[in-house]
Amino acid sequence: MNTTPLGPGQEFDRIRSIATAVQDILGPIGNDTAAVPSGDGQLVVSTDASVENVHFRRDWITPEEIGWRATASALSDLAAAGATATGITVAVVSPPDAHDADLVHLMQGVAGVLRANGGLLLGGDLSAGPVWMVAVTVFGHADRPVLRSGAAVGNRLWVTGVLGGARAAVASWMHGIVPSAPARLAFARPQPRLAAGRWLAKHGATAMIDISDGLGGDAAHLAAASVAGVSLVLDALPVHPGVIPVAPLLKQAPALFAALGGEDYELLVAMPADWNDPSGCEAETGVRLTLVGEMVDTPGTHFTLHAEPVVVIGFSHRI
Amino acid sequence: MNTTPLGPGQEFDRIRSIATAVQDILGPIGNDTAAVPSGDGQLVVSTDASVENVHFRRDWITPEEIGWRATASALSDLAAAGATATGITVAVVSPPDAHDADLVHLMQGVAGVLRANGGLLLGGDLSAGPVWMVAVTVFGHADRPVLRSGAAVGNRLWVTGVLGGARAAVASWMHGIVPSAPARLAFARPQPRLAAGRWLAKHGATAMIDISDGLGGDAAHLAAASVAGVSLVLDALPVHPGVIPVAPLLKQAPALFAALGGEDYELLVAMPADWNDPSGCEAETGVRLTLVGEMVDTPGTHFTLHAEPVVVIGFSHRI
Repeated sequence: MNTTPLGPGQEFDRIRSIATAVQDILGPIGNDTAAVPSGDGQLVVSTDASVENVHFRRDWITPEEIGWRATASALSDLAAAGATATGITVAVVSPPDAHDADLVHLMQGVAGVLRANGGLLLGGDLSAGPVWMVAVTVFGHADRPVLRSGAAVGNRLWVTGVLGGARAAVASWMHGIVPSAPARLAFARPQPRLAAGRWLAKHGATAMIDISDGLGGDAAHLAAASVAGVSLVLDALPVHPGVIPVAPLLKQAPALFAALGGEDYELLVAMPADWNDPSGCEAETGVRLTLVGEMVDTPGTHFTLHAEPVVVIGFSHRI
Repeated sequence: MNTTPLGPGQEFDRIRSIATAVQDILGPIGNDTAAVPSGDGQLVVSTDASVENVHFRRDWITPEEIGWRATASALSDLAAAGATATGITVAVVSPPDAHDADLVHLMQGVAGVLRANGGLLLGGDLSAGPVWMVAVTVFGHADRPVLRSGAAVGNRLWVTGVLGGARAAVASWMHGIVPSAPARLAFARPQPRLAAGRWLAKHGATAMIDISDGLGGDAAHLAAASVAGVSLVLDALPVHPGVIPVAPLLKQAPALFAALGGEDYELLVAMPADWNDPSGCEAETGVRLTLVGEMVDTPGTHFTLHAEPVVVIGFSHRI
């Protein structure tokens, strides 16, 4: 048993209780994926469930988008390892009144993500249940998976893409507003960063994590795993354009609104201090990188906005 | 895409619709596991969901048994491939009022099966939801996975263990009767036949399937996959002792009652016509084998009881 430490939080306390109780059969968990030797590399695996009325609502997204989103969110964990997707399995629970066409559309969403990112559908299970649930397990391959634990003090921290779009969509819906098309798309059809994750792994990433649980919680995991601190300047965050009209509803600065959101499925990556080739990543993978902070000595997370310290808690799925 | 044909049934019609829609990203499914090359053998994978009030009720089994049962049912698919378990992932959905202790107990049930059968816990996901749901994905290794499709006319068909115990427990509960201890155990703590599956693979099994969906439906899959027929003599079935007092409640002969049940997680295996060493399997794995029929020319399934033809439909999860 060799688990990587997790950051604080009630969900992670629960995971720690479980890990203690079953430690004799526990694999190397605590990263976005677990890795076991396979051939001349590592088999990396991860699982993720999406539950109706917890992670999404049926009046927000279509069955195809439910499948897309569940698959993208699971593949995002492979991206954080710098892995290539081999395949996935999908267990779908649907209400008794679901139509065959709904299930076909859901699986077409699953297929859409696989077509764009690689990987085969390697198994499925259909069950009845009171609400829609989709559990996606992903399998991939990496010569040397990137972990959360390798970030050294002085490493600089970058994020992929733009943040806050998915939260902007959810906040709009919760306020009875139709989200902007780009915000809705960020929530309904996130893009797992597999190509960027592999590019970053190849170019020296020392640690990587997907920020699906929000920058606050996931930066804390990276800090705890690397036994160091994370210092982030929120003013530098690349904010999704859909955030601008919505952040005032919650009386939050756009950058703080974006930092508090989850489910963007972007990556937070630690690169050596002297690395500075974000344009190479964008040219080769189409994914923008933004410098947002650095690894520091003091444990924990340290966020500033307008040069003032600010608390950024992790995102929790409560619709 | 190279899918193995499935037998008849509404659930399988749904699967066929999906497979047609997403065939370009479909792996080699249609067996108990899908297999992809890995190192010098095959990585075999499968996924299975257990849903409260569909597959079990909370007043029937404990949280530990929910975890045990879900894990055993998923590992049973590896058994049918003759594979060795590498590891599993577990996605758990629990109601908001679930206690941490319930989750720890559920995962102790998962751990119990892994201790007895091998394999590590390689990932998990905890979500809230309206009912308990456990999706277990298993992955294992086989030099040459046994498929459903290799049975030749003349091969003889054997089953592991005894059948009908799980159904005896469910039928008792549905009639307001406390099930016998052995029947309850068959439902709550099934034993995946991994060691027997590997033994049978090594000793020449030409086709194998786990009969979790009942002998009727699963024999039809084996027949369809092998492009031949299955002939089974129900009088020969090894009937679980818990069936005897319960079968009369449904006015069924014990052997028919057992054949109509599901969730025993035993294996149906085709062996060469001249093979006859069940005692070797029992001596080395502790699992009894019983000769129940043979592969025939006429497609489909052909069941007899007291020398009369009888229809045995597949088992469907409807509590």
